[in-house]
Amino acid sequence: MMQGKMQFILRRSIQLSLGALLLAAPMTGQSVSTQKTVTKPTVDYTHNVDPFIGVDWGGNTFVGSAIPYGLVKIGPDMETFDGRRSGFGYSSNGNILGFSHLHLSGAQGKYGNILVAPVTGPLKLDDIRTPRTDEVNQVGYYAAKLTRYQVKAELTSSRRVGFHRYVFPASKQSHLTINVAAALGLGNDWQAQKFLGAEIHLTSNHEAQGVARFIGGWNRGGEYKVYYYMVLDTPAEATQTWTGSTLSDAKDATVGNSTPIGATFDYTTKANQAIQAKVGISFISAEQAKQNVQQEVPAWNFATIHAAAKALWNTELAKLSLTGENDSQRHQLYSAMYHVMLMPTDRTGENPGWKSNEPYYDDFYCIWDTFRTSSPLLTMISPDRQRDIIRSLIDIYRHTGYMPDARSGNDNGRTQGGSNANVVVADAFVKGLKGIDFETAFAAMVHDAEVPPADPQKQGRGGLKDYNQKGYVTLASERAGSRTAEYSYDDFAIAEVACGLGKTKEAALYSSRTHNFANLWDKDMTVEGFRGFMRPRNPDGSWAAPYVVVRGTWPDFFYEGDIWTYSIYAPQDMRRLIELAGGNEAFVRRLDWTFLRRHFDVTNEPGFMLPVLYNYAGRPDKTADIVHMTLEKAFTDTRAGIPGNDDSGAMSSWLIFSTLGIFPVAGQDVYLISTPSIPDASLSLGNGKKFRIVAKNLDGDGLNRYVQSATLNGVDLPNAWFRHAQIKDGATLVLTMGPAPSAWGTVTPPPSMSDADFHSCVDWKLQNHASE
Amino acid sequence: MMQGKMQFILRRSIQLSLGALLLAAPMTGQSVSTQKTVTKPTVDYTHNVDPFIGVDWGGNTFVGSAIPYGLVKIGPDMETFDGRRSGFGYSSNGNILGFSHLHLSGAQGKYGNILVAPVTGPLKLDDIRTPRTDEVNQVGYYAAKLTRYQVKAELTSSRRVGFHRYVFPASKQSHLTINVAAALGLGNDWQAQKFLGAEIHLTSNHEAQGVARFIGGWNRGGEYKVYYYMVLDTPAEATQTWTGSTLSDAKDATVGNSTPIGATFDYTTKANQAIQAKVGISFISAEQAKQNVQQEVPAWNFATIHAAAKALWNTELAKLSLTGENDSQRHQLYSAMYHVMLMPTDRTGENPGWKSNEPYYDDFYCIWDTFRTSSPLLTMISPDRQRDIIRSLIDIYRHTGYMPDARSGNDNGRTQGGSNANVVVADAFVKGLKGIDFETAFAAMVHDAEVPPADPQKQGRGGLKDYNQKGYVTLASERAGSRTAEYSYDDFAIAEVACGLGKTKEAALYSSRTHNFANLWDKDMTVEGFRGFMRPRNPDGSWAAPYVVVRGTWPDFFYEGDIWTYSIYAPQDMRRLIELAGGNEAFVRRLDWTFLRRHFDVTNEPGFMLPVLYNYAGRPDKTADIVHMTLEKAFTDTRAGIPGNDDSGAMSSWLIFSTLGIFPVAGQDVYLISTPSIPDASLSLGNGKKFRIVAKNLDGDGLNRYVQSATLNGVDLPNAWFRHAQIKDGATLVLTMGPAPSAWGTVTPPPSMSDADFHSCVDWKLQNHASE
Repeated sequence: MMQGKMQFILRRSIQLSLGALLLAAPMTGQSVSTQKTVTKPTVDYTHNVDPFIGVDWGGNTFVGSAIPYGLVKIGPDMETFDGRRSGFGYSSNGNILGFSHLHLSGAQGKYGNILVAPVTGPLKLDDIRTPRTDEVNQVGYYAAKLTRYQVKAELTSSRRVGFHRYVFPASKQSHLTINVAAALGLGNDWQAQKFLGAEIHLTSNHEAQGVARFIGGWNRGGEYKVYYYMVLDTPAEATQTWTGSTLSDAKDATVGNSTPIGATFDYTTKANQAIQAKVGISFISAEQAKQNVQQEVPAWNFATIHAAAKALWNTELAKLSLTGENDSQRHQLYSAMYHVMLMPTDRTGENPGWKSNEPYYDDFYCIWDTFRTSSPLLTMISPDRQRDIIRSLIDIYRHTGYMPDARSGNDNGRTQGGSNANVVVADAFVKGLKGIDFETAFAAMVHDAEVPPADPQKQGRGGLKDYNQKGYVTLASERAGSRTAEYSYDDFAIAEVACGLGKTKEAALYSSRTHNFANLWDKDMTVEGFRGFMRPRNPDGSWAAPYVVVRGTWPDFFYEGDIWTYSIYAPQDMRRLIELAGGNEAFVRRLDWTFLRRHFDVTNEPGFMLPVLYNYAGRPDKTADIVHMTLEKAFTDTRAGIPGNDDSGAMSSWLIFSTLGIFPVAGQDVYLISTPSIPDASLSLGNGKKFRIVAKNLDGDGLNRYVQSATLNGVDLPNAWFRHAQIKDGATLVLTMGPAPSAWGTVTPPPSMSDADFHSCVDWKLQNHASE
Repeated sequence: MMQGKMQFILRRSIQLSLGALLLAAPMTGQSVSTQKTVTKPTVDYTHNVDPFIGVDWGGNTFVGSAIPYGLVKIGPDMETFDGRRSGFGYSSNGNILGFSHLHLSGAQGKYGNILVAPVTGPLKLDDIRTPRTDEVNQVGYYAAKLTRYQVKAELTSSRRVGFHRYVFPASKQSHLTINVAAALGLGNDWQAQKFLGAEIHLTSNHEAQGVARFIGGWNRGGEYKVYYYMVLDTPAEATQTWTGSTLSDAKDATVGNSTPIGATFDYTTKANQAIQAKVGISFISAEQAKQNVQQEVPAWNFATIHAAAKALWNTELAKLSLTGENDSQRHQLYSAMYHVMLMPTDRTGENPGWKSNEPYYDDFYCIWDTFRTSSPLLTMISPDRQRDIIRSLIDIYRHTGYMPDARSGNDNGRTQGGSNANVVVADAFVKGLKGIDFETAFAAMVHDAEVPPADPQKQGRGGLKDYNQKGYVTLASERAGSRTAEYSYDDFAIAEVACGLGKTKEAALYSSRTHNFANLWDKDMTVEGFRGFMRPRNPDGSWAAPYVVVRGTWPDFFYEGDIWTYSIYAPQDMRRLIELAGGNEAFVRRLDWTFLRRHFDVTNEPGFMLPVLYNYAGRPDKTADIVHMTLEKAFTDTRAGIPGNDDSGAMSSWLIFSTLGIFPVAGQDVYLISTPSIPDASLSLGNGKKFRIVAKNLDGDGLNRYVQSATLNGVDLPNAWFRHAQIKDGATLVLTMGPAPSAWGTVTPPPSMSDADFHSCVDWKLQNHASE
């Protein structure tokens, strides 16, 4: 551990010597993920990103400017058609209400704080909305013409500072307003945010600062305080504050309830007069918000900050390189990279909860979504970032008692299913990530597995007592089916780390629990002509009453997946599950049926692995069919290009892996091979090495989607899977494609717990992954 | 021919000696289909029928009372939500406008004529609509409470007469109105009906008669005249007629344009006073309409007419018997039988176009829909009815020049695709139906194949010149792809009949054309990873410009089907088509993909055969999967129980065959075996024999949906198909079912033109099917 800490301190000193380009990067503390590799890229990848991909059809992707993992995500907040304030932050239609500084991406139900809006003409506090035209969103840059006011708005940002530029028309009544009571999804329903009160202080004719307090939102988190410091490049002719609907000359205003509050800087503007504003955000203090401005954006050069943001993105985007892709694929994949790296939020130095030298990340929204593909992607291509994220999870455990399943607004909640941070830790562990205190991580995992939480919606494992006593969660707890399936896999993750750390007793204990998913398997339950499904048990152990058709499952037995999805979810032991389902042939028929009947839903994460499960039954050709179909059917490079909520980039990372033709078994050192859609693609591995995937004979029509043969680093690869150890020092996977299924990949399935080589810690091939 | 005619005359004399029960049956001329087997059934099957199945979600099934194939279909016409008059005749919501006498089933866009409606209180001619409650529809019976007027309405019918009974409340202003200007879907669009004018004559205080003239509608037919005669059991205190919005004491009214016209019989009613009305319909004259009433419904006994209608239906419904079915299956299948037998309409004796002693049927709406399953069903279980229908088609050819592809309102039109009456004739021919002049039928088929029609929307083969000169229809004609595929199959039908009739020269000619479908096969066209598809050719023979994504095909290249559906449509030569598609394995993958990607649409007839095509590639297990899925997914016993337009019963007959586990290859003497869903089912064959299908080991869950072995009449049946000759004298097919695919049915595919045994007429096994 101390070694890791010193590394951070050392790196910080390096960082402080960097120039203006890096002022937008993390300035305080220990989060230094991108520093090692920061060199000015010679290629600009950012033009491949279209931030609008996924904004429609519920993709919920962020519109505005942010650096990778940026704390500040500045963008427009919208009024929706029906007059309600959007809970989503952005819609293709609707009026703009202003530009606020905190947003999610691929998620909704939180933030939208500190809303800045220009106005010309009479200032109507309750009606500032304006249509917009000429909307532009590029990496680190947003612009629109606000037609009601004839103002052009431009935004860029550094990690904790939003940079606004407004070009006004000639007007004797020009205003720059700051609304500190605003937030997205305010209201009274149980998932709504609530505004609790705020302060605003006009410390000069071009400065405002204060704090705004909120509570609730999707994660039902506790109070979060947003400190802000706003500074303008042009002194105002007059300033006013408001509370309620009353403007006042007072320089200070405070409300302790939901009363509107804000301020306006008033000007007489000439035609095309630009007024700029920098708004620093902090979760510590208004003073720190001011420091953030001074450190990150010391000058008034919009272009410099925009260029710095682009440079940081180029460093991240350069980790993917493509050859032979089409335009749509290029736009989709780089936009996916962008979307993956908007979340979680790097709040290092901005943790109001406790003092620590560890990195601090927030907006795990939520790990239940991201552990399956986003985490393995970062483990592969951004191991230092993933190290920091996991260190942050461990630090949250230290100070809150649990690693979160979800967290936002500096508070844990709301759990979706299992304690899937366990899998995130195991994924990093079995892939050999350095710089993580795996002993403490292990303690956190065991805590998850042994200590029932007071509020299972907030953190920890709901129904844990049942699970640990009976081997399954009963109907006494919600989501009993998905929890049982996921806890079994979480326990597998714990067993892996126990093995690697030499804790043989714990390894044996948690290994024994990895089979618990089978305790809910009713071998006689028959649905749609298939026999054997997960079925709820009552608290007394008896099977629940017969299947009731409510969204294809018992009410609240599974979460975001039906009986088909969860009954084939056991990545730790697909061999056993296939035996339960009747053997390879019956399992293949069941999978066929699952896809044929649309039981597979790529927009919900529990189904993410379904297409590649054919590999476990010797039918990688069918994996190819489904992956190929899903990519073609569900993803495009348009505003509706993501088929559902991007879920903090989970969908986007699924897209990246699936387009490249591999799929990670999260939490295991295993990747499955599906079908590449691009002739030649590489991923940087964070150690200067690359993993390259070459698909020979690929055609643009998807005809040659079947792997005929494969080599890895020139050596014949007969299997439709490989291990992380085989690529971690750089590798080239060459797949020869053809128009018909072949014998390739049909013999040796990917590893399962029931396989001989999973029976002991020694054989788990974890010997190289000891803790530091 | 003369022999057939004498048979009819003989039968007529038998018919005339039958009693009151048969007064509802055809009374004039030669249509005697049901007479031979009319005996009072001991079992009432009619309670298994729910006429409401299919009324929602566009099933368009008829609501009201009709006998099998009845000319009069009396039922409610509805106002829709938005105030428009429904084009569909019925909706679950909306006000009732009255009860009219002509309707379609599983179709829309025609009729709704001679609208009778009771009214109490002031008579507002432009607002007679009323909500209803307590709606009941049973076989031959409809009832509803009309809440605005507090009148209970009941309906029953014979072939050409609607019988109304209205129970009034106490009222000094009770009216029974007859609106002769009414029709469904009036308007100005190109598919609208138009009212041209009418006469009404009040010949007494309880009688009205006249004619109403209409034109257009879905089939864009010429003018049709509906003659009517209305008689009431209660003399009115006063009568009035109206034209426009003006009521008058005049006993006669005439309009020669679209002016409203009608009459009212006015009463003072006591509480619960019943007033009954009989309305005879004729297409010949008002006098004949009156005779129809006198012959079919001589008395005022509503119950007798209702019982007669039920008896006729029981005769038809008794042709299906089920054992071990569940309630839903029973309701679905008998309702399907009912829906199949509502169309076409037996108008024997009511043909205004020409005098003939042949049967006369109308409302082929359209044969393009029904030739695939409805015709083979009738050929099997109602051969005498099918004989009459085909005789009618031949007679229409004699007098209009073409057998229709569609016909309604006594006029041919509007063609959908090929001249599929050819297949209907061949289906009857190869299955040995007697009493049909196949020489004239053959002349009609050749006429279809050789003489381009003046208006291909009305009748005949569009693009025929191209087709016969080049071997394919070019893009110069609409629906070039579907027409080419269908003409190829139509020509196969002609070749079959030519063979059977000993016309070897014609057999050779039309045999050679059966391969024309392959002339549009572009072996290099690749879509979604599959190679080889039908592709349009320009008039100069070159391939059309690349695939444009408009509903999955080129605009107007295919009709009600996409490139996937039509590119695997060649029932005459699946062997050749499978070779084009790359062989059995590739074909199975293509079919898998077709279903996976939802290119299969059971609601459009071109896809009807897709599920059973696996049988041609040795995979009857996959046929079982898809049939099983489609039944479960698409059909229920509810108002929304038919997944799309019933298309005159085409969907319903697909449902019957698919539930029983067999499927006819229309126009061939071949049935394919899919997967039965009922343990024991029999179909009467019209000759006193039955075809029984026994499924051993069937479970209610669809688990044992795979045939393991089969016997036909006790003899091992290794193939997943059999010939009509094997069952025509009665047969029992025993299928032993199991939970996993077996080797059964995988070796010898169903016959194809490219098979050796299709190469000569002698080998077509048609030797028993010589013409009379």
